[in-house]
Amino acid sequence: MEFSRRTMLGSTLVTGAAALVPAATAVAALPRRVERWGLYEIALDGPSSGNPFDDVRVVATFESSGKRLEIPGFYDGDGIYRIRFSPGELGRWTWRTTSNVAALDGRTGSVESIVPRAGNHGPVRMTRDGYHFVHADGTPYRPVGTTAYSWALQSESRCAETLTTLKAAPFNKIRMCVFPNVPSVATDPFVRTGGGPKDWDATRFDPAYFRRFEDRIRRLGELGIEADVILFHPYDKTRGYSGMRPADDARYVRYVAARFGAFRNVWWAMANEYDIVEGKTVADWDALFQILIAADPHDRLRSIHQLHVYYDNRKPWITHASIQHGAAVLDDGRVHPHRNFAQKAVIFDEVIYEGNSDKRWAKLTGEQLVERFWWGTVGGAYVGHGEVITDNGDPDRSWLGQGGRLRGTSPPRLAFLKRIIESAPQPGIDPIQQFWDYHLGGHEFTWYLRYFGGTTPTRWDVVLPTRATEPHPDYRIDVIDTWNMTIAPIDGVFRMHQRDEYEIIDLKRPVIDLPGKPYMAVRLIAV
Amino acid sequence: MEFSRRTMLGSTLVTGAAALVPAATAVAALPRRVERWGLYEIALDGPSSGNPFDDVRVVATFESSGKRLEIPGFYDGDGIYRIRFSPGELGRWTWRTTSNVAALDGRTGSVESIVPRAGNHGPVRMTRDGYHFVHADGTPYRPVGTTAYSWALQSESRCAETLTTLKAAPFNKIRMCVFPNVPSVATDPFVRTGGGPKDWDATRFDPAYFRRFEDRIRRLGELGIEADVILFHPYDKTRGYSGMRPADDARYVRYVAARFGAFRNVWWAMANEYDIVEGKTVADWDALFQILIAADPHDRLRSIHQLHVYYDNRKPWITHASIQHGAAVLDDGRVHPHRNFAQKAVIFDEVIYEGNSDKRWAKLTGEQLVERFWWGTVGGAYVGHGEVITDNGDPDRSWLGQGGRLRGTSPPRLAFLKRIIESAPQPGIDPIQQFWDYHLGGHEFTWYLRYFGGTTPTRWDVVLPTRATEPHPDYRIDVIDTWNMTIAPIDGVFRMHQRDEYEIIDLKRPVIDLPGKPYMAVRLIAV
Repeated sequence: MEFSRRTMLGSTLVTGAAALVPAATAVAALPRRVERWGLYEIALDGPSSGNPFDDVRVVATFESSGKRLEIPGFYDGDGIYRIRFSPGELGRWTWRTTSNVAALDGRTGSVESIVPRAGNHGPVRMTRDGYHFVHADGTPYRPVGTTAYSWALQSESRCAETLTTLKAAPFNKIRMCVFPNVPSVATDPFVRTGGGPKDWDATRFDPAYFRRFEDRIRRLGELGIEADVILFHPYDKTRGYSGMRPADDARYVRYVAARFGAFRNVWWAMANEYDIVEGKTVADWDALFQILIAADPHDRLRSIHQLHVYYDNRKPWITHASIQHGAAVLDDGRVHPHRNFAQKAVIFDEVIYEGNSDKRWAKLTGEQLVERFWWGTVGGAYVGHGEVITDNGDPDRSWLGQGGRLRGTSPPRLAFLKRIIESAPQPGIDPIQQFWDYHLGGHEFTWYLRYFGGTTPTRWDVVLPTRATEPHPDYRIDVIDTWNMTIAPIDGVFRMHQRDEYEIIDLKRPVIDLPGKPYMAVRLIAV
Repeated sequence: MEFSRRTMLGSTLVTGAAALVPAATAVAALPRRVERWGLYEIALDGPSSGNPFDDVRVVATFESSGKRLEIPGFYDGDGIYRIRFSPGELGRWTWRTTSNVAALDGRTGSVESIVPRAGNHGPVRMTRDGYHFVHADGTPYRPVGTTAYSWALQSESRCAETLTTLKAAPFNKIRMCVFPNVPSVATDPFVRTGGGPKDWDATRFDPAYFRRFEDRIRRLGELGIEADVILFHPYDKTRGYSGMRPADDARYVRYVAARFGAFRNVWWAMANEYDIVEGKTVADWDALFQILIAADPHDRLRSIHQLHVYYDNRKPWITHASIQHGAAVLDDGRVHPHRNFAQKAVIFDEVIYEGNSDKRWAKLTGEQLVERFWWGTVGGAYVGHGEVITDNGDPDRSWLGQGGRLRGTSPPRLAFLKRIIESAPQPGIDPIQQFWDYHLGGHEFTWYLRYFGGTTPTRWDVVLPTRATEPHPDYRIDVIDTWNMTIAPIDGVFRMHQRDEYEIIDLKRPVIDLPGKPYMAVRLIAV
């Protein structure tokens, strides 16, 4: 189906007060106010001849209280150019356009950035320590993500089903590809030039394709879900979108940055499995990051996802490490070195999927996937979900490929885990004394989480690594059944005393009983 | 005791045919031949007034068949300047000096680089794949290292004891500090200016101190042991050698590079626990590596060792990652991400020590240390030994601090492990399909090692990850008791057939028996 511009422009935007201007409207009709972190859009009439994607450049300079941002515009077809801006600060912003085309040059206006509505916490940023995430207004953000690669490219009804699913699910981030990787309704980001799979013109975008995609971003935003937008992937051998020339890659990156970057819930994932994209070297990816940064004045989060070879996530343009590994989240001792290597937050975005496939990458039980989440959490990282449960055995038509309904047993347990994570102190759960293999995460002298995975202990020695000179609060303890989703507080407190140079213990209560079941955890909270 | 220059110069050098020239001898008396990778030394008389360490520069340009190397000289006291060169290629090398001092300028000569004696395999380099080590003549080198920080600074008799110990031990690399970190006989690398601990002049080296140190390097070379020379460490708060000014650090790095760099068994470890050296930033360490590279035309191996924060070992001047961690070698799944991070060889140079200390970093049993070596090996990395076994409880006077005798139970087992490692195909043991957690190391379709650590299995399913399109050789299997040092071959061969998309198995012999003991391993060799 042709996705109409009217549908999108007519709908209630996540921006709230600032409704977008219909295409034909002049600058004079622009809204006078936009909420902070909302989306303010300028629509301008301009030329439609030649190739506007290449021939026309338009940028608006926004200024407020000494701040100045250059916001690139983009061509939306039918002679209409749009400039999208999301103010990071309150107050009056004035703007002026610059263009190589007279009709778009020297246009001016202003907008007042006002206090946002409840629920608008601003974009997600890295915490000061670099290992966790937080909204711009200070609200903690703990990623519990999922992946549905081409959900945004499916039919309206399938997309609606996905959004209904997400509304009831724990996930606050979804990884989604711009280019299709499974059978999709929307398949042509570029104007087609013939009937063959490779008959498309990389220099001409199809605005309707991107309009559909940004509608999905907006509707995710209404649910408070971050859109982790995957710009490239290696899977479309038929149409070859990963095999464009560098100039076409650059034009594409600039286009999506200008179109999507003002949506506050957008994250950039440069590629899925970058290291098996044919024809691109690490230097090419590095260069694309520079292009993205220059094209994205909103400075959204940036990562890149690998199959075999870890990208060097210490590179300064990477905000957080996005890691794929089938076994690195089977033990917190495998997890936390990833933080040490990146020196920033780590999301294990892909850890094999819950599924009923005969493919080894899509046959985890719910228990196995939830276990991975817990080890990742105790290791101070974040973990992502995926599901390949089908009746017909076709992974492409699963949640992972197309979205739709979730059928697995992990999501309720991930909702439970999310509540545990959200109970941790700011800025988030860090690994505790990983050098000494305590299997503890949390925040020293305040809040600890110990996880036992698939083992079935009947007791646990209540020992914490603490030196004599460090704080010695009393602790209360919860015994957590991570699968059955119960939290059982143990009566009374544990009065910890120094046992030796390194550890503390309550000599009257040195041990707690555990039920001998798998997937148990213990939480210690200073009182 | 004052370590005399004659003692060193009069001894038989590792260079073999090319004996060093006594100090007073003129250029004319230089040897005409030096074995390839041996040490050729030019001694020149020059000024001894002022501060020769700062005032005099002398470099020899060596040329052979279009190759050209600039070899910096150094001042050895008493008006004598030395230039040390180790030819990497056979054939005639001519040289000419350049100096800002007339007496040292424009001197010329030549030397023939000849086929080396048996036992001289040349310096250790990285293998082509970057994950292993090999001598310049192609002889594999598998690091099984130890640490004795200040052994080289002890008395002659203690040093002799250490060398006797090493001769009988499996270790082919030893980590050793230039600056003392424990009670030592040699404590003053710099000329003293008074009686206080900080009364020394960083601009004036004491040649005798360095002469002693290089004698130790040479004697290690005679035993075929690599000297992993640690240039800085954070432990000498009293004298403060880690707190010199940048210009003094640079002078020191240049001096040791010129003095020691021509010994083919030298490796450079820029620092021990770089991240707790006060007053130096990562940028400072990066800068020191640039100084070292410029000062070391022999291009010896380079690493840096950390306590908490992993150095970014992808930096191009790092040849291999030197890692300290107390728990990362307790599971191969923790080990191999380090290879992926560094994209080069990893040596876990410090994994806590075998010891009888009450310090938690020095109380491993021999079994525990050997287990760490095996997990590291199966994970495709290398591991280092250390021992703190004392009668008096003073770690400083242990093997780790001063050398001497080894008393632990791990060394014979490490000798056994070394033979297993040496039985692996070139270039070395790599992790096998780590994404799928097989706990296998080796070389696909040829040679596999499976290790069981502290578990006590009574059987093992003989399953290998192999696809239908990949080689399907038959395998023979050895059951290895890594602690009792036995290798028990299982009769007959295993004829492997495809079991599913991913794995092969011998349907008639799907399982082997194991003895239910800890520290067992299995080796599969294609026949």
